[in-house]
Amino acid sequence: MLDRARRVIPTGVWGHNRFPAFLGPGRYPVFARRAQGAHFEDVDGRHYIDYMCGYGAMITGFANPAVDAAATARMAMGDCLNQPTETSVLLAERLTELIPDMAWAGFGKNGSDAVSTAFLIARAHTGRTKIVCVNGAYHGSHSWCNWCNIGAGRPAEDSSMVLPVDWNDLAGMRELFEAEGDSIAAVLMTPFHHPFAAPAELPDEAWWPGVSALCRDGEALLLVDDVRAGFRLDLAGSHRYFGFSPDLICLSKALANTHPLSVVLGVDRCREAAEKVFAAGTFWSASAPMAAALANLDLLCEPGRFDRMQRLAGQLCDGLVAHGAAVGLTLEITGPPTIPTVTIAGDHDFALMTAFAENMVARGSFVHPTHNWFFSAAHDEDDVAATLTHAQGALETAAGTTTR
Amino acid sequence: MLDRARRVIPTGVWGHNRFPAFLGPGRYPVFARRAQGAHFEDVDGRHYIDYMCGYGAMITGFANPAVDAAATARMAMGDCLNQPTETSVLLAERLTELIPDMAWAGFGKNGSDAVSTAFLIARAHTGRTKIVCVNGAYHGSHSWCNWCNIGAGRPAEDSSMVLPVDWNDLAGMRELFEAEGDSIAAVLMTPFHHPFAAPAELPDEAWWPGVSALCRDGEALLLVDDVRAGFRLDLAGSHRYFGFSPDLICLSKALANTHPLSVVLGVDRCREAAEKVFAAGTFWSASAPMAAALANLDLLCEPGRFDRMQRLAGQLCDGLVAHGAAVGLTLEITGPPTIPTVTIAGDHDFALMTAFAENMVARGSFVHPTHNWFFSAAHDEDDVAATLTHAQGALETAAGTTTR
Repeated sequence: MLDRARRVIPTGVWGHNRFPAFLGPGRYPVFARRAQGAHFEDVDGRHYIDYMCGYGAMITGFANPAVDAAATARMAMGDCLNQPTETSVLLAERLTELIPDMAWAGFGKNGSDAVSTAFLIARAHTGRTKIVCVNGAYHGSHSWCNWCNIGAGRPAEDSSMVLPVDWNDLAGMRELFEAEGDSIAAVLMTPFHHPFAAPAELPDEAWWPGVSALCRDGEALLLVDDVRAGFRLDLAGSHRYFGFSPDLICLSKALANTHPLSVVLGVDRCREAAEKVFAAGTFWSASAPMAAALANLDLLCEPGRFDRMQRLAGQLCDGLVAHGAAVGLTLEITGPPTIPTVTIAGDHDFALMTAFAENMVARGSFVHPTHNWFFSAAHDEDDVAATLTHAQGALETAAGTTTR
Repeated sequence: MLDRARRVIPTGVWGHNRFPAFLGPGRYPVFARRAQGAHFEDVDGRHYIDYMCGYGAMITGFANPAVDAAATARMAMGDCLNQPTETSVLLAERLTELIPDMAWAGFGKNGSDAVSTAFLIARAHTGRTKIVCVNGAYHGSHSWCNWCNIGAGRPAEDSSMVLPVDWNDLAGMRELFEAEGDSIAAVLMTPFHHPFAAPAELPDEAWWPGVSALCRDGEALLLVDDVRAGFRLDLAGSHRYFGFSPDLICLSKALANTHPLSVVLGVDRCREAAEKVFAAGTFWSASAPMAAALANLDLLCEPGRFDRMQRLAGQLCDGLVAHGAAVGLTLEITGPPTIPTVTIAGDHDFALMTAFAENMVARGSFVHPTHNWFFSAAHDEDDVAATLTHAQGALETAAGTTTR
């Protein structure tokens, strides 16, 4: 399949899905055939318990019958029309109830659409242009987000209005505001720092109160890119989990359980600016993904379901650490258990993580060696138990590989 | 519905769908309930023959059973996964067969995704940064495309790498290449010029040969934004309709008949650059819209269907002009009949077009006063006949309004 794909698609696989093709076909599944719940089958008929969840897009299970039935029912009445439908109003009402800090909603497709729209609103609201972002933070593949240095073709000029700061460097942030406060429209950050190929970093106790105060005093907006973590830490928004109050929130990924949808949510005082900007895309008002989101939120809000996801994710992480310790490997799990970043102490070149991940995949648990994993509400006790058995063997093998 | 929507959505309607809310609820439908084929019903139960086609996203009919069945079947096997599926390969194969000038494909969601990716590839290929674009051309709501001056929050810096030129101004284009040729990565243009609130402009005979020669001699890539016109002029690409050979083509809108999908297609010599860039979005490898695209292309390629769409669109345009002449109004239809821009001679403030469009809507044909319309393969002889009857009355009323 990869040989055939390479003839008509550069590298054979497009976008972030390229990683298995790069890491080595034969060791990682490169093409999938079908998926259901927390499981998928590759084109060669091998089965996996999945811990990447479509890079976070899945949260209530692949091909979830209730979510997909809602999307299909709306599709049969027409999906992407000239006008929005009542579904857009229902979903905006639902999101502002679920996330009561926010007063209004505007929809898009990609997480990047929500972030770009948040930029427009912040600039329209403040009359300023610059945006403070954290070094190494991924906010989408738009060219301005080029400090992640992924891929060619990104001119330095594209990030000329971005002011970089290190995560948890409150002194550095204060200096930025002192030097350039008059031109800072907004601070854009993920609720916790989850860079690629590095441990995640939680906020220091002083971080969010300090950032919030600098934004308030400097009359800049506080924007949260909750695209990746959204719906996995707190259904009312990841800012609640960490205890701060943003002005605009960007959500996508898990919002509609694999259906393409993103949203920017805002507080009331930003509404006027949101009415003045133009952000649009052909498919942004399509109703089927919005119907999917409503059904998905119904499932996530069912009593016990969210807590069970947290509990099982915690069991998985605890079990991994224990199995590592048993073979002399110190697994470091950073970030919350539903979006864990797994690294191994001393494994600076990721050789151990690579061996571990490859062995997990060979045993039937699909994990990533250098990207955070995703846990879902579709994973059950049997999945966690099976994966911990896979991990026991994979960690033994990985530990043995490096001592040889 | 609009009052309710305004509480939770800025202006009540998001994006390009805002226009009926702005032009006046009561005169235009603001929310839709359902759609089928070339028809839709608004939330107040009024029925319309549609000439906006979801701003071009619909081409084989809203809620097309064959297209939606293909999407739903793939959805039941899992839509947005960690890996692509065979569907991505099948669609890339199909597109490079249908558009034989192109060798490979890479997928996205928005038309803007394809355009942004084309920029990355052009910059990676040439090692240069600047892009030549036409004044007034809309290439999506990304901030760099800010010369259309739509909405607030767009800093001038965002278009610092764009070199503007007027449509059909070959001398101006030659001067740009003489002055800045060493920094020009690409020329990005629509196949014909379709600005908002102005007549469309076809290419002069010298335009595409001249632009092509300047790109070739200047070692810049020629990029076509065929998002709006694609599949409505020539199934093998609108560049075939106008007779030139681009390096990269961006398609979206009608590609998957309302399902969210875009694609950048390229010639073989750009493949290496396309392998080096990183362009990604969570939902870009989702298979259901790709399955929809395959089914949609099957329908469009059925013998006679494309020609019939052209013929009926021509009948509509000819009929409109005749009905206008009968009441003393000179209707000017610019652009090809399947994407006509309708203006009225001497109607500089669009008062006549506004009266005409409102009266069309009141009679049951949904048209836009200042944006190009879209014709589809779902429109039939009865639709065209009914709309021409609507037009006869609407033009009489519009002509009467202005003579009073």
